[in-house]
Amino acid sequence: MEESVLGEWRELLKYESVGSDPSRLKECVACASWLRKWLMKLGFTAEMLYPGEGSPASEGSLPPPVLYAERQGDEGSSTVLVYGHYDVQPPDPLHEWRTPPFEPTIVDDRVYCRGANDDKGQTFALLCGLRDYLASDGRKINIKIVLDGQEESGSKSLSDLVPSLRRRIAADVLLVCDTSAAPALRPAIIAGLRGISHFTVRLSGPNRDLHSGEYGGISPNPAQGIAELMASLHLPDGSIAVAGFRDGIENPTHDELSTAEMFGPSDESLAEDIGCDPCGGQTGKTLVQRNSFEPTIEVNGIHSGYGGPGSKTIIPSSAFAKISMRLVPGQSPRGAFAAVRAHLEDRCPKGMKLAFEDVVEGSAAFRLPLSSPLFRLAADVLSEMDPRGPAFQWCGASIPVLSILREASGAAPLIVGWGQAEDRIHSPNESYSFAQFDKAREWAKKIFTAL
Amino acid sequence: MEESVLGEWRELLKYESVGSDPSRLKECVACASWLRKWLMKLGFTAEMLYPGEGSPASEGSLPPPVLYAERQGDEGSSTVLVYGHYDVQPPDPLHEWRTPPFEPTIVDDRVYCRGANDDKGQTFALLCGLRDYLASDGRKINIKIVLDGQEESGSKSLSDLVPSLRRRIAADVLLVCDTSAAPALRPAIIAGLRGISHFTVRLSGPNRDLHSGEYGGISPNPAQGIAELMASLHLPDGSIAVAGFRDGIENPTHDELSTAEMFGPSDESLAEDIGCDPCGGQTGKTLVQRNSFEPTIEVNGIHSGYGGPGSKTIIPSSAFAKISMRLVPGQSPRGAFAAVRAHLEDRCPKGMKLAFEDVVEGSAAFRLPLSSPLFRLAADVLSEMDPRGPAFQWCGASIPVLSILREASGAAPLIVGWGQAEDRIHSPNESYSFAQFDKAREWAKKIFTAL
Repeated sequence: MEESVLGEWRELLKYESVGSDPSRLKECVACASWLRKWLMKLGFTAEMLYPGEGSPASEGSLPPPVLYAERQGDEGSSTVLVYGHYDVQPPDPLHEWRTPPFEPTIVDDRVYCRGANDDKGQTFALLCGLRDYLASDGRKINIKIVLDGQEESGSKSLSDLVPSLRRRIAADVLLVCDTSAAPALRPAIIAGLRGISHFTVRLSGPNRDLHSGEYGGISPNPAQGIAELMASLHLPDGSIAVAGFRDGIENPTHDELSTAEMFGPSDESLAEDIGCDPCGGQTGKTLVQRNSFEPTIEVNGIHSGYGGPGSKTIIPSSAFAKISMRLVPGQSPRGAFAAVRAHLEDRCPKGMKLAFEDVVEGSAAFRLPLSSPLFRLAADVLSEMDPRGPAFQWCGASIPVLSILREASGAAPLIVGWGQAEDRIHSPNESYSFAQFDKAREWAKKIFTAL
Repeated sequence: MEESVLGEWRELLKYESVGSDPSRLKECVACASWLRKWLMKLGFTAEMLYPGEGSPASEGSLPPPVLYAERQGDEGSSTVLVYGHYDVQPPDPLHEWRTPPFEPTIVDDRVYCRGANDDKGQTFALLCGLRDYLASDGRKINIKIVLDGQEESGSKSLSDLVPSLRRRIAADVLLVCDTSAAPALRPAIIAGLRGISHFTVRLSGPNRDLHSGEYGGISPNPAQGIAELMASLHLPDGSIAVAGFRDGIENPTHDELSTAEMFGPSDESLAEDIGCDPCGGQTGKTLVQRNSFEPTIEVNGIHSGYGGPGSKTIIPSSAFAKISMRLVPGQSPRGAFAAVRAHLEDRCPKGMKLAFEDVVEGSAAFRLPLSSPLFRLAADVLSEMDPRGPAFQWCGASIPVLSILREASGAAPLIVGWGQAEDRIHSPNESYSFAQFDKAREWAKKIFTAL
């Protein structure tokens, strides 16, 4: 890597751009400004966007800006929309860092810093590849860039802005570098992401915590009630018991299934990873099916009554559970939530009242056709870079903002990242190697050239 | 009430004898010393007892003492064991008290103070009746007195002492004044108490909280697992689903049932009290059956995973629930716990591990024969005091120390108290009226005379 590029990368990493921390708003704005100037040098028009009418009245309530940039290509050429984010996870726990979290430190050709990978490192590598491409000979395509300042905390501003940006972000391809490669830095193309929907359900019973002796056999018990409600969501074989929840599900093709199985992790490696039998989901389906192609309903938290040391013999007054659902293609987030809501309301235990809070209907899943020209082109580029060729991955996780951008821009997602487990994103001592940066940069230059 | 008696009562109430608060140990010791001197004036031998060999080495680790006193009666006379407690609930929340919690304040012939009723007031009234009895003419019976300093926090010292006190506390009748009369101060005899057993069950799954997308369908979910376990404890009709749990249960007699129904509360009054339909327990049984004559398994608390604002989409690493069981006569606490433990172990969700903590096998229930000579005698005395005659009550609650004392002393319990709901025991502004005190004192003098 040239000294000048390394210098720029280090400048970018020094901004403490924790998007969820209001006290670091200035750092976020300065980081976005740095990127804006950087892009303007490449001939981009670029502006900071905030939701609402113009810029908010009170500076104190400003969210981190969305940076939007455009560069016109040759007439009749295709349009690529790049999505990345300049915000980072908080650096906590600070005492576990071996070097200061916002002081880029190079050890053995790796840069250690919060955001070294996620996503300032990966996005900047992609932008460097874009600069290489723009500096090269040949026809130039149209480039649009959206850099999010709140990806780590829900992309609220960008989600609010999208409806008004539909025309501006319209594109053919949505290029993202915010994921991982397969083990041993084998290139990987994300062929699908699950959708997500989440909510809190609250159950109310007696008007106060009651003595479990004086009122036992008299009062209904919300702790028992919430347990019954949560238990009712699945059948004994681990399948989902909610009528209507699976409506519309599009099953994967034979090709998708067999490709996914080829690249999927083994039971043994997962058992070692999580420290218990990886037996979640429905009996009789493979790990890959359960994680990539089946929806889930997970209890993220359940709380009621006494939780301290020893005992407190009460019948709790109320209970709540937090639930997230991962969705697969064909399921509508609204329909899936409505099905679960109806299921729970139908089973509301007698004597108690049910309420729903913090409902986020969320975003739909998507799967991308393996045989699309875009994927064939990407696979050719990646095979040229690495003789092993790309792995294809169907993530069990969700990137809600990509579902929203995909829908609004009409673009076909091309999600190729170069992370590795050792990068420890979201954890102390995050890092990204020169080798990974170079791969991401090379990939970007090559794919811009090919598109 | 004589000024001198009121003066003594006030002296006793001023001690801040919160037995569970180590910083108030001196207050507890001073309170017990006051009672010891008071009893010695009546011709009792009295000593402070601590568990273990002699008095503990370190003053700092002393628990509140148990005060034990004895007074020999005429030869061949029967023996009454009196149980009471001089410890009180903490006065919190302090700001809700209208007068200082440990400054006895008289308003409208009621004494307001922590412990005014529970149990310094009720016990002292009983002791004043005993003094009246001893001052009267006639034959005198043998009296033994146990005054607990930890009733409000589990009676640990007394429970530890009981095995070594079996001979000393042997008696014919166990007289207790620590309960309530029926509404409108109608006398009430406690004809039964449920037993209690409680424990914590912990479920462990993956080695850390996992991302609900990356691992959803792969990892087992302890929050869902604990819900399934708790839901499995009951059948849809509210009856208990645990095999062997009901082994040995002795059903109430027709006479007990009809008497209990006669004195039981109405559905309407309970609905108003608890603010929801009083529909706990098994469908098809009456309120009185469910609260007085049926066992319960209650979830006192259930906790797993995220409980903060908004969402955190995780699969929690572990979960726990706290459970208490109320037992009825014939059930052994050990057997009931073993049945529930086996039930849960048999259903341990796949991929997870189950552990039991804080197991307190507890104490058995008892029911006292309505037609016993003791109850007939007590009913005669109470009918003489009040033409309505006594109500009979089978409490859904438990007083574990009474089960232990009953078993160790061989004595038949006679539990008659004079509390009323308006006394607000355990709450701010606890009080006890002169009228109640006089009733308790009169009752004690009369029953000692009759026994």
